[in-house]
Amino acid sequence: MNILRVDIFSDIACPWCYIGQARFAKALADFEGRDQVRVTWHSYQLDPSLPERFDGSEIDYLVQSKGMPREQVEQMTQQVAAAAAGEGLPVDFAAVVPANSLRAHFLLKTVARHDGDVDAAQHALFAAHFANGEVISDEEVLVRIGTEAGLTAEQARAGLDDETIHAEVQGDITRGRSIGIGGVPFFVFEDKYAVSGAQPPELFLQALTKTWQEMEPANPTLLTLDGDGASGEACGVEGCD
Amino acid sequence: MNILRVDIFSDIACPWCYIGQARFAKALADFEGRDQVRVTWHSYQLDPSLPERFDGSEIDYLVQSKGMPREQVEQMTQQVAAAAAGEGLPVDFAAVVPANSLRAHFLLKTVARHDGDVDAAQHALFAAHFANGEVISDEEVLVRIGTEAGLTAEQARAGLDDETIHAEVQGDITRGRSIGIGGVPFFVFEDKYAVSGAQPPELFLQALTKTWQEMEPANPTLLTLDGDGASGEACGVEGCD
Repeated sequence: MNILRVDIFSDIACPWCYIGQARFAKALADFEGRDQVRVTWHSYQLDPSLPERFDGSEIDYLVQSKGMPREQVEQMTQQVAAAAAGEGLPVDFAAVVPANSLRAHFLLKTVARHDGDVDAAQHALFAAHFANGEVISDEEVLVRIGTEAGLTAEQARAGLDDETIHAEVQGDITRGRSIGIGGVPFFVFEDKYAVSGAQPPELFLQALTKTWQEMEPANPTLLTLDGDGASGEACGVEGCD
Repeated sequence: MNILRVDIFSDIACPWCYIGQARFAKALADFEGRDQVRVTWHSYQLDPSLPERFDGSEIDYLVQSKGMPREQVEQMTQQVAAAAAGEGLPVDFAAVVPANSLRAHFLLKTVARHDGDVDAAQHALFAAHFANGEVISDEEVLVRIGTEAGLTAEQARAGLDDETIHAEVQGDITRGRSIGIGGVPFFVFEDKYAVSGAQPPELFLQALTKTWQEMEPANPTLLTLDGDGASGEACGVEGCD
């Protein structure tokens, strides 16, 4: 009713997701209905085949797994690092440890379940991976980030092994596929509009505003069994029918 | 996307809300998309002027506060008790203690905040009030119901005095007024359709089915700054742009 839902599909080892989070946050800060926006992060895996931890640099991994020339990979990482710097986000590709992001997604769902700060956990995972050379599949790294986002260490550990959490992550991945998402970040506004990629804050603000303007003040249509518009048995200020 | 939202406005001291919960639950059990239905209970107060605890019976209170003839009140309570019995819900109007429901709403919001079982707490509050002669403004009664729904006693107590919880309840009351709700229970499906009162399960099932059929498979429309349909900078399986 007065809540504007935004669903964000994102992976951790995804520099444009890191940048997109910052650009979306800028737009949200400028949006007058920001207190009524409810953001939900959804899991997406760019590379499910990645080992828990790859023994080599990110550049080695991309050269080896994607078959791209080293020079092209280096140029790509430099461009991404420059864009991140433009948003005030430190990135150090030389330190990045390629690692499977699945367990990091388990952590994010656990933070959400316990009503922790998902946005902060998301940011901390990006920073751990891109700036601090930490291994995002490592349990101790994940538990630390979980506790910083409001979990107890026990809750964080339990979530990593929780089957319903695993199912939630798989559900997101299936859902992303079903709406045809081919890259991330991907932003969906009230299931109605979408923004693909780390677009300028200006576009996110347009999407928020457009969605918001089209939402209200649509009152629901009353359904009845006979189509006569009659209310069922109810209590009102004058008592119960 | 694949979630069907149902918003239920309800009060505690509202026998048709008690009955409506049971009838809606029956419809939900028969609805094939039930796993994708997300129910949110919203606070509504039929009688904000009620004292914390009224010294007299429910029938005395209704006669005194609404100025209705005692005979009419007795007939009304008998009809309601018979309808409740028809749903297998025990009701004992002679034992009911009229009490302000505001703190019970605080408890329900606290259960929701901590991801407890709101549906169970809602049912327990109805049973406490209508069957067991308990005082629904009493802190110990509320704490017990909260712990049965998954809270710790500390969480339950803290929620009763939490200003953001109080604001959430007031927000619901304002929202109910803004969509013109004059009696409860009142059910809203995806902000699109509404069912007023404790209607037969058949109508709830129709509302769920109709809403569901009209929801899918609408994919979101992609927004771009220039209207050219281009994606922004993103990462895909072949790397990052």
